[in-house]
Amino acid sequence: MITTSNNAKVRKVLQLQKKSKLRKEERLFIVEGPKMYEELPVERIESVFVSESFYHAPENKALLRKYEYEVVKDAVFADMSDTKTPQGILAVAAQYRYELADLLPKKRPPFLLVLEQIQDPGNLGTMIRTGEAAGITGVIMSQDTVDIYNPKVIRSTMGSLYRVPFFVADDLSAVLTRLKGEGIAFYAAHLKGIQHYDACDYRTACGFLIGNESNGLSDQVAELADCKIRIPMAGKVESLNAAAAATILMFEGARQRRV
Amino acid sequence: MITTSNNAKVRKVLQLQKKSKLRKEERLFIVEGPKMYEELPVERIESVFVSESFYHAPENKALLRKYEYEVVKDAVFADMSDTKTPQGILAVAAQYRYELADLLPKKRPPFLLVLEQIQDPGNLGTMIRTGEAAGITGVIMSQDTVDIYNPKVIRSTMGSLYRVPFFVADDLSAVLTRLKGEGIAFYAAHLKGIQHYDACDYRTACGFLIGNESNGLSDQVAELADCKIRIPMAGKVESLNAAAAATILMFEGARQRRV
Repeated sequence: MITTSNNAKVRKVLQLQKKSKLRKEERLFIVEGPKMYEELPVERIESVFVSESFYHAPENKALLRKYEYEVVKDAVFADMSDTKTPQGILAVAAQYRYELADLLPKKRPPFLLVLEQIQDPGNLGTMIRTGEAAGITGVIMSQDTVDIYNPKVIRSTMGSLYRVPFFVADDLSAVLTRLKGEGIAFYAAHLKGIQHYDACDYRTACGFLIGNESNGLSDQVAELADCKIRIPMAGKVESLNAAAAATILMFEGARQRRV
Repeated sequence: MITTSNNAKVRKVLQLQKKSKLRKEERLFIVEGPKMYEELPVERIESVFVSESFYHAPENKALLRKYEYEVVKDAVFADMSDTKTPQGILAVAAQYRYELADLLPKKRPPFLLVLEQIQDPGNLGTMIRTGEAAGITGVIMSQDTVDIYNPKVIRSTMGSLYRVPFFVADDLSAVLTRLKGEGIAFYAAHLKGIQHYDACDYRTACGFLIGNESNGLSDQVAELADCKIRIPMAGKVESLNAAAAATILMFEGARQRRV
């Protein structure tokens, strides 16, 4: 049993929780909690840590059969955890590596969510979760979007992180230009959009462009859109939350594709 | 200038930030930041505090003409603030008092959002903001929903708190029964719903029922719905975030009402 937070493995987990750069270098990320651990594909697991109380609770027996693990003193586990109320189990896992082609299935028209500089981890996680439910085929993110392996993003995805292909674009404009060349139409959520969002046809290959929470899309990216669309707003609301806008657009797309 | 956090006014603000019960007893709430302060109706203001740096910044001159204020040392202001990066201005304001009738306008069919035991302040705030944009006529909350005057709720509403009428129901079932008697149809977002959400007509008087983030609606409230509706989900998503579900439903209603 690990009894001190000075343990090298514990320190490594802590650093992986906190440092995006280290996660990227080592191609690792941390998964916390029984639900996220249960859904984690076993071939991704590098190591597993459980708190003493978690280990002793009979209801966790089945889950502990999944993979080998180390038991950690509760106080040490609390140090390793990113949450205020640790759930007693965490895993170090290998990051996903997708090619752009993985986001473009052959069997149905691509349906992409493109994010530029989203900063709030909860927003990003929710968009991935909502996106899976809406049937998107992938998420493309600018390199200055919050790290998808940020612990709060992972939690907010509720497992969708494992299932939605994603791609971080070093040069978002170049990627969009390339995809436009392959026949994908992009619709930019834009306060200056004229076309109502529900007046466009999203049944063919398409993607939605969603910009930063405070500043929206950069002009450079917005100009690449085939169409700037507007979500009509009642009242005196100046803008929608980025995740709310993405939800409305993705589910309008899903609705059309279902009909 | 107030130079110590032991000042009685400072201590009062701090308590109002933290204690829902005190806010309720005193019928007050705290508004932080220039944007929220600018939009705060002047007749609600009880007192205003600004940090020394905020007071000295020339760009804040216009805003400071709105109402009388007290200047507070920066370090003391940081103590009063609910945020990690205080924005230098906060106001104590009088709570809103709505009657249920305020949520039921005469000129257009009522369009309600009904929330049972929503716990996450960010969720509640976002739903109010998105709701205003979707044109809802009011929000009804069960008494065990997070306090609408929680600082994080207020921030997340981005000012919609000032404009969307709301009502906290001591007995949610009784309120819904009464409203049904007045001809309002309720649609429950429910994982066991059969009807697709976009197959119903929301152009007449109606409301959406949204339940707790983990457990959904209680049986008692769900049974009061005229129809349980389902948001079809692709992939392996078990449920949507409560705010995402509310967004999809409210904007489907808005879309229908616009057509």
